[in-house]
Amino acid sequence: MKVKVLQNILDANDQMANRNRQVLDKAEVLAINIMSSPGAGKTSLILQTIARLKDRVRIAVIEGDIASTIDADRIGEEGVSVVQINTGGACHLDANMVSNALDSLSLEDTDLLLIENVGNLVCPAEFKTGAHKRVMLLSVPEGNDKPYKYPLMFTESAVIIVNKIDLLPLLDFDVTAFRQAVTGLNPNVKIFPISCKTGEGIAEWVSWLESELRGR
Amino acid sequence: MKVKVLQNILDANDQMANRNRQVLDKAEVLAINIMSSPGAGKTSLILQTIARLKDRVRIAVIEGDIASTIDADRIGEEGVSVVQINTGGACHLDANMVSNALDSLSLEDTDLLLIENVGNLVCPAEFKTGAHKRVMLLSVPEGNDKPYKYPLMFTESAVIIVNKIDLLPLLDFDVTAFRQAVTGLNPNVKIFPISCKTGEGIAEWVSWLESELRGR
Repeated sequence: MKVKVLQNILDANDQMANRNRQVLDKAEVLAINIMSSPGAGKTSLILQTIARLKDRVRIAVIEGDIASTIDADRIGEEGVSVVQINTGGACHLDANMVSNALDSLSLEDTDLLLIENVGNLVCPAEFKTGAHKRVMLLSVPEGNDKPYKYPLMFTESAVIIVNKIDLLPLLDFDVTAFRQAVTGLNPNVKIFPISCKTGEGIAEWVSWLESELRGR
Repeated sequence: MKVKVLQNILDANDQMANRNRQVLDKAEVLAINIMSSPGAGKTSLILQTIARLKDRVRIAVIEGDIASTIDADRIGEEGVSVVQINTGGACHLDANMVSNALDSLSLEDTDLLLIENVGNLVCPAEFKTGAHKRVMLLSVPEGNDKPYKYPLMFTESAVIIVNKIDLLPLLDFDVTAFRQAVTGLNPNVKIFPISCKTGEGIAEWVSWLESELRGR
């Protein structure tokens, strides 16, 4: 019974996600759904991406949080369009929330839409938003065993960004073991090691984004 | 409709949690529900607690994970009773899962039961397990703004442990702002800054646990 209710919710969500995708495609917007644990650096990644791309790419951001507008406020200071979604307790963005947010953005003036999901390694992987690609961040302090514990997130993502690599010399994070675990679950995934603090690796991520933008 | 389904699920969970509490009280077991983001250090805290208490307190552990037995295997090596719950996708432990785990522990030989929840700052706060106290860990790399973004977790916990304080000199984590945010939400909460790596602060946490054990 509980499973059936969940299945119905997920089916309805898929339909709404398909509708969002159509709206995005019509407006020629590339949408990226960014997922991670709390504090892994989603907002920092978005700020770094804006800094490097805003002169040549028109960027908009949807900020998902349970409560507060801290992240949207920070991003608004960069002069890009930003919509805050407060989920009011829900642990993930769903397609309906994103649909409402799309209504308040001028998509015809947007090339790239970055959607920051709620910080959570579980449910965001289950709910499609209509975005073209899912990207997950794992930060070095979280440890290299996370693919075994939260497999769906790693299976569903096209790109995995390993953030806070400036802390690698200080922490026990086995990069080789991590790569093996991830590619075992998802052989075609791209992995970008970065540090939003030092800027290391950001260029490779941005260059991937640009190739996706060109491919549209 | 969705809200009503959720309410029914939570009500049923509360009933089961009450039943778990009765079972625990009858066996004179103190149960602690430990919650945090992925990788904040729940398992390390449990290992440190076992190391300091196992000579005078009979400890059992319930390990909650979506998948894998990595954490239960590590804890089993310490010679305490451990039961692994794999939630099979669910992002939190519920009272029913804990009830099943209680059945496989010999509670009459246990003084302290440590329940490691799934790594998630959202849903575990909504689902009671029957434990007497909820304890949350926040690790320094996650940042000091988390109380604003995930308020329920901070409101529902009796104790907040700030882990990985050995990284404080390297990271932007404003301890004073964090304390203010937390006590604004939850004036009576106890805050223990610790490092599972260096052992700093663990004695204060263990001494709190011992006073709770004596108070039973």
